[in-house]
Amino acid sequence: MPYFIFCIHNHQPVGNFESVIEDAYRDSYWPFLKAIAKHPSIKLTIHNSGFLFDWMMENHPEYIELLRSMVASGQAEVMGGGYYEPVLCVIPEEDRLSQIRMMSDKVEEVFGKRPRGIWLAERVWEPMLPTTIRNAGLEYLLVDDYHFIKAGLDRKDLGGYYITEDQGNVVRIFPGSEALRYLIPFRQVDALEDHLKELGTFLRKGDAAIYGDDGEKFGVWPGTHKWVFDEGWLDAFFGMVEKNAEWLKSVTISEYLDREDALGKVYLPTTSYMEMGEWALPAEASRTYTELIEDVKGMEDGGRIRRFLQGGTWRNFFAKYPEANWLHKRMLLVSKELSRLSTQARPGGGLERARTFLYKAQCNDAYWHGVFGGLYLPHLRTKVYENLIRAEESAGTGFTGEGATVEFMDLDADGHDEAVIRTEDLGLFFSPHNGGGLYELDYRPRAANLSNTLSRWEEGYHYKLLSMGSVEAGAEAKSIHEMVKVKEEGLEKYLKYDTSRRGSFMEHFLDGGATLDSFFENEYRDLGDFFQGRYDASAEDGTLKLSREGSALGVGYTVLKEVKALDKSSFRVKYRVKSHEKVLRRDFRFAVELNLMLPCCDGPACKYQSSPPMPDEEGIGLGSRGEVKGIRELGLIDTHLGIKAEILLSAPATLWRFPIHTVSLSEGGFEKIYQGSCLLFQFPVKEDGMEAAFTVRVEGI
Amino acid sequence: MPYFIFCIHNHQPVGNFESVIEDAYRDSYWPFLKAIAKHPSIKLTIHNSGFLFDWMMENHPEYIELLRSMVASGQAEVMGGGYYEPVLCVIPEEDRLSQIRMMSDKVEEVFGKRPRGIWLAERVWEPMLPTTIRNAGLEYLLVDDYHFIKAGLDRKDLGGYYITEDQGNVVRIFPGSEALRYLIPFRQVDALEDHLKELGTFLRKGDAAIYGDDGEKFGVWPGTHKWVFDEGWLDAFFGMVEKNAEWLKSVTISEYLDREDALGKVYLPTTSYMEMGEWALPAEASRTYTELIEDVKGMEDGGRIRRFLQGGTWRNFFAKYPEANWLHKRMLLVSKELSRLSTQARPGGGLERARTFLYKAQCNDAYWHGVFGGLYLPHLRTKVYENLIRAEESAGTGFTGEGATVEFMDLDADGHDEAVIRTEDLGLFFSPHNGGGLYELDYRPRAANLSNTLSRWEEGYHYKLLSMGSVEAGAEAKSIHEMVKVKEEGLEKYLKYDTSRRGSFMEHFLDGGATLDSFFENEYRDLGDFFQGRYDASAEDGTLKLSREGSALGVGYTVLKEVKALDKSSFRVKYRVKSHEKVLRRDFRFAVELNLMLPCCDGPACKYQSSPPMPDEEGIGLGSRGEVKGIRELGLIDTHLGIKAEILLSAPATLWRFPIHTVSLSEGGFEKIYQGSCLLFQFPVKEDGMEAAFTVRVEGI
Repeated sequence: MPYFIFCIHNHQPVGNFESVIEDAYRDSYWPFLKAIAKHPSIKLTIHNSGFLFDWMMENHPEYIELLRSMVASGQAEVMGGGYYEPVLCVIPEEDRLSQIRMMSDKVEEVFGKRPRGIWLAERVWEPMLPTTIRNAGLEYLLVDDYHFIKAGLDRKDLGGYYITEDQGNVVRIFPGSEALRYLIPFRQVDALEDHLKELGTFLRKGDAAIYGDDGEKFGVWPGTHKWVFDEGWLDAFFGMVEKNAEWLKSVTISEYLDREDALGKVYLPTTSYMEMGEWALPAEASRTYTELIEDVKGMEDGGRIRRFLQGGTWRNFFAKYPEANWLHKRMLLVSKELSRLSTQARPGGGLERARTFLYKAQCNDAYWHGVFGGLYLPHLRTKVYENLIRAEESAGTGFTGEGATVEFMDLDADGHDEAVIRTEDLGLFFSPHNGGGLYELDYRPRAANLSNTLSRWEEGYHYKLLSMGSVEAGAEAKSIHEMVKVKEEGLEKYLKYDTSRRGSFMEHFLDGGATLDSFFENEYRDLGDFFQGRYDASAEDGTLKLSREGSALGVGYTVLKEVKALDKSSFRVKYRVKSHEKVLRRDFRFAVELNLMLPCCDGPACKYQSSPPMPDEEGIGLGSRGEVKGIRELGLIDTHLGIKAEILLSAPATLWRFPIHTVSLSEGGFEKIYQGSCLLFQFPVKEDGMEAAFTVRVEGI
Repeated sequence: MPYFIFCIHNHQPVGNFESVIEDAYRDSYWPFLKAIAKHPSIKLTIHNSGFLFDWMMENHPEYIELLRSMVASGQAEVMGGGYYEPVLCVIPEEDRLSQIRMMSDKVEEVFGKRPRGIWLAERVWEPMLPTTIRNAGLEYLLVDDYHFIKAGLDRKDLGGYYITEDQGNVVRIFPGSEALRYLIPFRQVDALEDHLKELGTFLRKGDAAIYGDDGEKFGVWPGTHKWVFDEGWLDAFFGMVEKNAEWLKSVTISEYLDREDALGKVYLPTTSYMEMGEWALPAEASRTYTELIEDVKGMEDGGRIRRFLQGGTWRNFFAKYPEANWLHKRMLLVSKELSRLSTQARPGGGLERARTFLYKAQCNDAYWHGVFGGLYLPHLRTKVYENLIRAEESAGTGFTGEGATVEFMDLDADGHDEAVIRTEDLGLFFSPHNGGGLYELDYRPRAANLSNTLSRWEEGYHYKLLSMGSVEAGAEAKSIHEMVKVKEEGLEKYLKYDTSRRGSFMEHFLDGGATLDSFFENEYRDLGDFFQGRYDASAEDGTLKLSREGSALGVGYTVLKEVKALDKSSFRVKYRVKSHEKVLRRDFRFAVELNLMLPCCDGPACKYQSSPPMPDEEGIGLGSRGEVKGIRELGLIDTHLGIKAEILLSAPATLWRFPIHTVSLSEGGFEKIYQGSCLLFQFPVKEDGMEAAFTVRVEGI
């Protein structure tokens, strides 16, 4: 008799809004569990990721109670995983094992049974994973049939599990059915029954219909709550499975494993689910590939072609988004520091706490972008930095010395060293190779990175917005291929693209041709070659010296910037710009660009204070561009974070500032997201150059 | 000014015939090096794999001398690699590091400079490799532009190297040009010059034209020696590069690295060169994919589709060929044993020697099959087993106890234990789950596995042979897609396929319908379900008991086979077949199948001796099928290996035997290869069953 495997994965990102989780619980997790519990013959294999699990333990013990009784009765099997749902292949092996064991311990503690399976976060497969999984004590996992088809297997041979291995370490791997993923819960139960019956005629004795997917499709996805619960889809679905129990046996994955043998051996390529392959590609390739997939559907020979088409791999998000790369490498730095500590004889609760913060920071959502915000969501990135800094604070690795020192290390793994200055309160991460800019500015008492911006990257899907023309908010436009929703009017005006990651203390030479608007639109002309140019770096007595011999409009210039911590919470960046020839160009301006996630949002709790005051001081975070002449002081106040930063200039400057808004896709459609503010301080250039200094002080409020 | 990078990789498999290596040296390696040495401005980056390197050191020191002078003068850079050219990702990390360091040490010792780059065997990339490469002390490698295109990059952005990393461990990776690989040395130098000049118009300052390929294309590949050397192609090519030196600068890879920065960051999927993707797929998928690639070339939109097409991954050879899987897992067992020993305080030259044997056994060629024989070549497989057994002998891990014991372990990583019996001279590897068969029969004094056969697997390319119809030897037939050569007449008659790996002591129930020919053709009817069925296994007093409750023609039977080592070089397999009902079928036969690579070839040095004698005793290894009735004794004599095996039967049997021939592609075209002999001993079945025993004795001669 064939089997039916029903596997559900529930997950909430670390750092997600409390209200969002509560809504998801109310609309999906709880009604789902209650519904299936009423059909005790329907077996469930379920995974709740650790952050959500802890949240339920604390806020909704009734969920855990019900699930526990279902485990006790044999109706449900609980899977393990990396505790905070990391993409396993990109975190250190030590952390992989530790996070998986942490989850297994928790499952055993709560449900009395150690899990046998691992839910693989985002189904991101790499061939070395079996060794990790086995070493962590687990024996099976479920990915998509897509993974298997990319290994050359035929869909008809996917009615069970396969053996795969690395270095002889064996795991059992199940192919979740794409067809079932598209049917459940989106089609009528009748259609699903027909599909199962048709499938049944192909299934061999011992074969299974295998479903594995996100639990949020039952109630969280737009429109699904009404359909799945209010209109009774889920209950009808379970009823249908019960009705067919004579020929289709509902089993947990472990029950299946104990009854049936493997179909063979398989080796999967680096892949995730099909859509991830579209998202992970570089923008142009992503668009080309997505369109190709659509076009191929209409081709006579489409199935044969589609079988061998593959998109990008998950790790490519680190090449696609330097901000994701930085997050990841910053996380690796913390992990390495903790690992080093743990080999020393220095036990203590601090290190244990630090590890938990690190693991939370490894939660995958903030590191990539598909159609669910992810990296584009500032609150998720903020939470990663918060957890990383907290980990450092707990372990005592953030600031160990007496005074500030300059340390060189290739933090972002681009083959060139960063220069890191740490004081008791601050962490300053400069990248000499990338314009000598400041790419991370930590204020440790609030566990915040004030430099947590995101550039306006071109996305492969932006053309869909453009092809709609000017649209009104809420409009739905059906492009050639799919429905696209727009949350807000005039979004296409925000499709301005940056060419590099946004940092601070980066230099431009501008003339009258550059205007605030052209600068915002990234369509100005930079007369110099300093912005994103390569700087030499050296350190002397705690001062970081960054210098570059470059040119502007054919004249040689040396730009020297000296960075020095003044005390625990302030630092100075001193500029000396020397011209190699005496030239005077009246409208020549030396401009220093800062990009800060401070204020952290465009809400009313945040404001700027400048001297002289800005024309729309309260509104600066609300989407407006502006200019202030003769500015000497700027205060950036964020009452949400409880941080105030003051910037004092040694000479008056003209300030341009504008909010950085990205346009990205989320489940609700296209949306604009505030990613910080760009501040451009402009100084006149004399015939032999100029000098100016910035003093930055950060404090809690 | 753009650059030209010229990188050559020379390799000979461990175990290749001495004369083949000598020919390759004479036709390619030596004339190539002499030719380039005469053009001192042409820079060369070169890799000779360790086995070949050692062979040259011993047999042709003049090559090493010349290369040393080229390194000293700065004309040549020598790359490192895994010493015996293993596919890195499938050997244990400890062995990876050790083999790479061994090669680096050798290069430093001979050339005075430690290598900076690694030649990646078969360009088989997996994402975790950067950690290994960095830990082994190397910093760059070269793969194909194909790898980069599969990561979504555009060909126009491949004029330099990229940074990639794993866990923050950075390596620099070059994309070798496919266009140059197809031009060099196969097209006129003029055409190549045109290509370079056209490329030059696209190259940006600092870009490079990057060539990296096998040195055997210069002289070893059919027809190339005449073209490349006698007709002066190579000299003219170097002259052309010299002529264009004003705009195209010839550099070694390290020179390029020291001058130019990375183009960006990249993350490559699990891939090798394009053709490997075709070969690694399962047979049906391989054929479908290969045809698709051809068809797509002709499509209007072909380029766009081709960009995203991907084939299989290298590891899939272990799923495709159980013999490759066994070789690999057997190698892992030896590696694990050596690794365990090395952590014990038991130093000594034996372990060092053992490691060298192990590393030789890791040489990639025998583990896969593309178009160069590989796994299909018995002498390569034989060498792997020889080196593995020698490693065990050197380390003392092959037989450690006093008497024979039965050990259970999942050797082939299929999730089910094998049973291993080792005596002083023998190693017997039974697989209860796979018909309870004997899949490896080691005779350690000669370091030989007598069970080293290969099944007749269907290959994706066989249809090309069939579509040619009956062809004569030497004929060339142009199929739709390509030229196919046939080395021998009537090969299509050998296209009979097996459904499983060939082992020994596997059982059939046959009746009169089964004939020798139908058995050879695998088109007989097995009345029982014992062949490849699942056996229960247990051990008692050194006896392995394998039993299965099955049926034959609806009647229940129990087959029990007891395996026991009799002394250091002999063992007995005792059969007891019990019928659950009393039935007598006159033509019912119980048949025991053995498949042995003994004699190891079909040359005249090998023969059988049987009692009663075989009709064509001398000819049995030469391709004939035959039957002997009433056989009681069979001697298998291999004067090449110096081994004699005697099989004594407790009851007279009818013996069928035929040589196993595979049909595979090699660079010379389709060829038939002897892969051992199949022996089928048939016994009458009484109404309550039957009993019989095989005694096998192996000795050196």
